[in-house]
Amino acid sequence: MSVTAPLGFEAAGVAVGLKSSGSPDVAVVVNRGPLKVGAAVFTSNRAKANPIIWSQQAVQDGVVEAIVLNSGGANCFTGSFGFQTTHQTAEKAGQLLGVSAGDVLICSTGLIGTGDEAFRGKVLEGTEKGIAQLSADGGEAASLAIMTTDSRPKRSVVTRNGWSIGGMAKGAGMLAPGLATMLVVITTDAVIDAGQADAALRDATRVSFDRLDSDGCMSTNDQVTLMASGASGITPDFAAFAGALADVCADLARQLQGDAEGASHDITIEVVHAASEEDAVEVGRSVARNNLFKAAIFGNDPNWGRVLAAIGTTAAEFDPYDVDVWMNGVRVCSQGGPDASRDDVDLAPRATHLLIDLRVGAATATILTNDLTHDYVHENSAYAT
Amino acid sequence: MSVTAPLGFEAAGVAVGLKSSGSPDVAVVVNRGPLKVGAAVFTSNRAKANPIIWSQQAVQDGVVEAIVLNSGGANCFTGSFGFQTTHQTAEKAGQLLGVSAGDVLICSTGLIGTGDEAFRGKVLEGTEKGIAQLSADGGEAASLAIMTTDSRPKRSVVTRNGWSIGGMAKGAGMLAPGLATMLVVITTDAVIDAGQADAALRDATRVSFDRLDSDGCMSTNDQVTLMASGASGITPDFAAFAGALADVCADLARQLQGDAEGASHDITIEVVHAASEEDAVEVGRSVARNNLFKAAIFGNDPNWGRVLAAIGTTAAEFDPYDVDVWMNGVRVCSQGGPDASRDDVDLAPRATHLLIDLRVGAATATILTNDLTHDYVHENSAYAT
Repeated sequence: MSVTAPLGFEAAGVAVGLKSSGSPDVAVVVNRGPLKVGAAVFTSNRAKANPIIWSQQAVQDGVVEAIVLNSGGANCFTGSFGFQTTHQTAEKAGQLLGVSAGDVLICSTGLIGTGDEAFRGKVLEGTEKGIAQLSADGGEAASLAIMTTDSRPKRSVVTRNGWSIGGMAKGAGMLAPGLATMLVVITTDAVIDAGQADAALRDATRVSFDRLDSDGCMSTNDQVTLMASGASGITPDFAAFAGALADVCADLARQLQGDAEGASHDITIEVVHAASEEDAVEVGRSVARNNLFKAAIFGNDPNWGRVLAAIGTTAAEFDPYDVDVWMNGVRVCSQGGPDASRDDVDLAPRATHLLIDLRVGAATATILTNDLTHDYVHENSAYAT
Repeated sequence: MSVTAPLGFEAAGVAVGLKSSGSPDVAVVVNRGPLKVGAAVFTSNRAKANPIIWSQQAVQDGVVEAIVLNSGGANCFTGSFGFQTTHQTAEKAGQLLGVSAGDVLICSTGLIGTGDEAFRGKVLEGTEKGIAQLSADGGEAASLAIMTTDSRPKRSVVTRNGWSIGGMAKGAGMLAPGLATMLVVITTDAVIDAGQADAALRDATRVSFDRLDSDGCMSTNDQVTLMASGASGITPDFAAFAGALADVCADLARQLQGDAEGASHDITIEVVHAASEEDAVEVGRSVARNNLFKAAIFGNDPNWGRVLAAIGTTAAEFDPYDVDVWMNGVRVCSQGGPDASRDDVDLAPRATHLLIDLRVGAATATILTNDLTHDYVHENSAYAT
């Protein structure tokens, strides 16, 4: 169900030939109200795709009526022609739905540089077809239409006392992270206002998608959108809503990590006793981006020296000779020196836990990443994204 | 000849079983004078190996009599026992050579966390054996003894009017870069003082080793050392000396790039028309560290979208919609949009040239890197470093 689990939403997923496979490639999600509240966060890459430039403007008034998403082409670095394509897509959707084009958000994913006349024609066709097929159980079809290299759709729903939140996602990457573009649409029938939607979304993404750093490559097209219909008629406590939204985001982030291109290990990097949360995030991210560490995990090698070398490149407060490192529950390094034997560590399971104890403060952060594998190299050398 | 090409130097390379292969693993280079000038630059990783901590102190007076280098163990994160090993090595060499231990530099490379009693015994044995075998044509043997995953030794010599500079190197990585540890020893028989040696070395490494960014992983053990004997009796013009030193460093950096672990492309990233040299370096380095770009080059895919996405993560002055990108002489992107067809670009040759024209200023920088390959993943997952 995903985005159509909450009341007040309709969705569709259709195929118009943007993907050579013939799989669905255009998704539409529409908010039937009564509220039309929207909020979104975007890639921090300065090289932004046309749909990002459009959506950033369109969401500013906190009103979102609908969102149109396509796979099979990023419409990024396609010049003013590409921007006009995005604009025309919003106009077309607005016209057919009887709403302002300025309240329609657009997302695209696929190869950068794709956005020619044929692309435009298909996206417009998909918008029309999708709107014609909108239904209250179209969430599943929509979640399939946004997939690119994903091996499976990502969906999540939480239900509370009379209200719910639903979401769908594709790819893996936000702000810093990457792989394929990450697109996320989250819906809720709770009664919230635009300020609450924005605040809750920023809080939730900061500790979920923004701490997923699969390969350190930031996409030009990442977008996470939240739409609220208020159709449940229930106004939840803000903390309760924010908590439920955080749960959905965390669940989707874990699903993205678990389906990262070519990965054979899902690595949870937990940094504890840091001087600040910023320090903990910087240390976790530095390790998550260290190719030597990531290749070692692929090889089931508990190479803690590469962990310390990665920490050493940060500005975080720590003493290299007073750091403990645990891998899957075994302390392989204590106070910057060797501890348990490498042979005691079992890195065969896909779920891998790295604990870094900086021993200087009380702050903590968790970063999710993946290993660096032959399949990652293969997918990203053979498949143009 | 490498480090023994200039007059006044003796060297040796011996095998003491630090490498399980039985290949040479301890090198000694001694300056017979009359000058005993030395300068060195070190990894900027805050997690420093014991030999780095020692050598940083020992070189501060500008006097270097000798350097002892071992492969087969990094002596990093080996606690105070490891530091004592480094200290004892310098003491042993000083004693045998009749010089102060404080004028003996130490370098180590190999697995982090290696530095136990057996390691200490072998390093001390190698120091003794190496000093016993010192000879004026020992440069070649020394260059072999510092190799780890290198497939071939790296040596360079430039000869000027009556004076010369010689060098040897292993691995690839300095300051930011990585892979294996980079160790470089450069010798000269020119008459220079410690201040000149330091200034020339910093200038030369800044635009050579420091712009080689093979895999973005900074080692804990990187060290580049320059020793001057003055044995030619000739005092070159400082600019002439600095230029010759820069040539040797650039030559060795190219050799390191050409032998980077698992690489199939040597990528030269030239950034032009940047607002400042810092901007140009930041842009080049960001592209050099982008796994998606590096995997694309491995797959002979001229994926310029990944180049622009990497530039977009920097703080450099540029307009994403006014950037040109050339690959091997073909302009694939002009003003942030598609230009020549991807099919026009031949990425089959190992030497790959990426030109990024930021179109904002007059500054330029060149970064050297490699592609991300199956062999890189294999070497770094199967081989513990």
